[in-house]
Amino acid sequence: MYSRVVEEALRKAGVDVGDRIRIEKNGEIWEGILLPRPEGNPDHIVIKLNSGYNVGVRYEPGVKLKLVEKKKPKVEKKLEETRRGGPNIALIHTGGTIASRVDYETGGVSASFTDQDLLSSVPEIFDEANVSSRLLFNVMSEDMNYKHWKKIAEAVFEELQGNLGVVVAHGTDTMAYTSAALSFMIRDLGKPVILVGSQRSSDRPSSDAFLNLLNAVRAAKLDISGVYVNMHDTMSDESTALIRGTRARKMHTSRRDAFKPINDDYVARIYWDGRVEFFQEVPGRRDVEPRLDAVFEPKTALVKIYPNFNPEILDFLIDKGYRGIVFEGTGLGHLPLNDPEFGLLSSVERALDEGILLAMTSQCLYGRVHPYVYTNLRKLSSRGVLYLGDMIPETAYVKMGWVLGHDASLEKAKEMMLKNFAGEISERSTP
Amino acid sequence: MYSRVVEEALRKAGVDVGDRIRIEKNGEIWEGILLPRPEGNPDHIVIKLNSGYNVGVRYEPGVKLKLVEKKKPKVEKKLEETRRGGPNIALIHTGGTIASRVDYETGGVSASFTDQDLLSSVPEIFDEANVSSRLLFNVMSEDMNYKHWKKIAEAVFEELQGNLGVVVAHGTDTMAYTSAALSFMIRDLGKPVILVGSQRSSDRPSSDAFLNLLNAVRAAKLDISGVYVNMHDTMSDESTALIRGTRARKMHTSRRDAFKPINDDYVARIYWDGRVEFFQEVPGRRDVEPRLDAVFEPKTALVKIYPNFNPEILDFLIDKGYRGIVFEGTGLGHLPLNDPEFGLLSSVERALDEGILLAMTSQCLYGRVHPYVYTNLRKLSSRGVLYLGDMIPETAYVKMGWVLGHDASLEKAKEMMLKNFAGEISERSTP
Repeated sequence: MYSRVVEEALRKAGVDVGDRIRIEKNGEIWEGILLPRPEGNPDHIVIKLNSGYNVGVRYEPGVKLKLVEKKKPKVEKKLEETRRGGPNIALIHTGGTIASRVDYETGGVSASFTDQDLLSSVPEIFDEANVSSRLLFNVMSEDMNYKHWKKIAEAVFEELQGNLGVVVAHGTDTMAYTSAALSFMIRDLGKPVILVGSQRSSDRPSSDAFLNLLNAVRAAKLDISGVYVNMHDTMSDESTALIRGTRARKMHTSRRDAFKPINDDYVARIYWDGRVEFFQEVPGRRDVEPRLDAVFEPKTALVKIYPNFNPEILDFLIDKGYRGIVFEGTGLGHLPLNDPEFGLLSSVERALDEGILLAMTSQCLYGRVHPYVYTNLRKLSSRGVLYLGDMIPETAYVKMGWVLGHDASLEKAKEMMLKNFAGEISERSTP
Repeated sequence: MYSRVVEEALRKAGVDVGDRIRIEKNGEIWEGILLPRPEGNPDHIVIKLNSGYNVGVRYEPGVKLKLVEKKKPKVEKKLEETRRGGPNIALIHTGGTIASRVDYETGGVSASFTDQDLLSSVPEIFDEANVSSRLLFNVMSEDMNYKHWKKIAEAVFEELQGNLGVVVAHGTDTMAYTSAALSFMIRDLGKPVILVGSQRSSDRPSSDAFLNLLNAVRAAKLDISGVYVNMHDTMSDESTALIRGTRARKMHTSRRDAFKPINDDYVARIYWDGRVEFFQEVPGRRDVEPRLDAVFEPKTALVKIYPNFNPEILDFLIDKGYRGIVFEGTGLGHLPLNDPEFGLLSSVERALDEGILLAMTSQCLYGRVHPYVYTNLRKLSSRGVLYLGDMIPETAYVKMGWVLGHDASLEKAKEMMLKNFAGEISERSTP
């Protein structure tokens, strides 16, 4: 996999993949385990540092390579040893990039993440806790739906018993939808549930998997309760951020610091050395009996509004028996209402007449929707469209599906939509 | 409208609405025109400063009020006088918050924005240019559609003749959609077209209307060409930012600095005193003949994907004869493909078989979609779904409607979608 020149230099130094190697270049020294070169420049020697991070060092004439220690055969017993003592933390694997790792033997990418895999790739987590792994399924998160949410909620619910906290490893694409779902589906949650993923698979030199996972385990030990997302908060490998599960949103396709809290602060920053800095108060651990409330109504839609949005699309959802619709309106929560061709007022009225739950969020993402500023908004609000304050569209959608899963009356459903269950909606503080 | 205490103090000082007043409080002094109190705390005396900004000063015992000058009757001739000399700039009004202003006589809010209105509310713009106003229509932007876009494009096209630049005053909700539409609908644009709006109506003390409008006129005089949005770039009244028309997005429901460039830098910052700071190079003025290319295919859809998105919605769009669909996928551009109930692969294949143009953007907003990272993406891309790089979803939707409006072949339409017309798509610079 490495270039011919690099392979030759490694051979001369007697270093094989998996061995501990020392690289000296221009006075700088790196030491770590030699990894197979999975992609990118074949002149970069990639090693795994003691810190758990990978680094790629460009090989040039003059670079010195030295074998430090030959690879040791895996010590099966070590897992048992590290597991003695320390708090119990459950790690549930559901798939995604974080679940893919390089196999030191073959250089291939393996999808499973067993205890043994964990031990070899992130041994530091066993210094933090007695971590038990459970492979629930292996699904890339773009393929997840409410059935997966229910299974994850059930697994988390089971693992809450006997563990100090639960970590859920998950693909990043829909992680924030799942974190919202878990926030609602497990009630009276007195312990932390931490979702974690990685933007770069762990076989890439720049992977964020190690620090994210390590800090997720650390987060699961904190005196907090509720569902959180734990991902890198900067481009560096310094720290991760804990974000409330109902406020997290993936805001970049590829950057390691893709997850941002929307209309909320970070809950905490966890540094590489384990220090924790809190930015707001969140509920602490509570000695309560959790309840599983894993219901969801799939006949719920999230509809983004845009100029020329055709009312026929809304009519179709009504015809198809959808029970609830969350709009991603414009600005403070607008829909086009008055245009003879594109005005949505009559379709909205029809939906309301048929008892469909309609609610408004904003495609701006940041800020609050507000039904009283403009005439058009008052029209919608007075007819019964719920304005969801500063709730983000994706969370509003997940919440509505969960609320409608309870088969309660429309009035009760509206009441639940506006009630704060997990930090998803806040009181208006400023006008 | 003011509290009884304030009304009494104003009466004693002999100050009426419209008069120039001096307020002294705790050693600080404000001087300006007394405005009627439109909303908020009735103990705040609201005046319009010389700078054009409004300020509210809380009245308390000890605050000194002094009449500086009684309101003068409007000088009709002044407009003609100020208009002599200076470059010609056209200002096209289309409605929105910026078009609402307080009437000093009645305290009511008036919707029109005539030359005379402008003169009394933002006299500074006549120091900058010979501004001619044109009221095209008065539509709140949530009600705008492609027919309005065409009318605005036509009006801009007309005003390009004989003016150094064109300013379009527009509601903020869909301003970024319109700026994208104008970016495509006017070809060979050798002058600046500046969209401007306000988040707070000009009758509110915190209005951003004045600085935005003043700086829009300044921007229209710059040596740049193309379509830009000019709005506040911070919470303060210090400066506005010029954002490329295809990169602007309203990212907050109410803040004055709601507009952000996505996957782009600001083009320039314009300070209150007229200084301009550029952050990137943009095309300068060019002596070219503009062409009006105001076409749009309304049978184009923007579809945001979310977990449990039902394939029946996509099938409906196919049944209804939609000619193009822009997906807001997850992450790097994913759709759920493989689930027996929610997988979209067969619907996507059906759409492609029927010659529907399908393209992919990301709901992350920031970053690029990329078809080669994961297997699911390769599946979509190899079957003909276009990946639109770093184009933002709303711009991609507007562009697709414009492209399909040309009734060209599917191949030609694909080629146009991937071609950069107005900075809407950039070459991949980093892996």
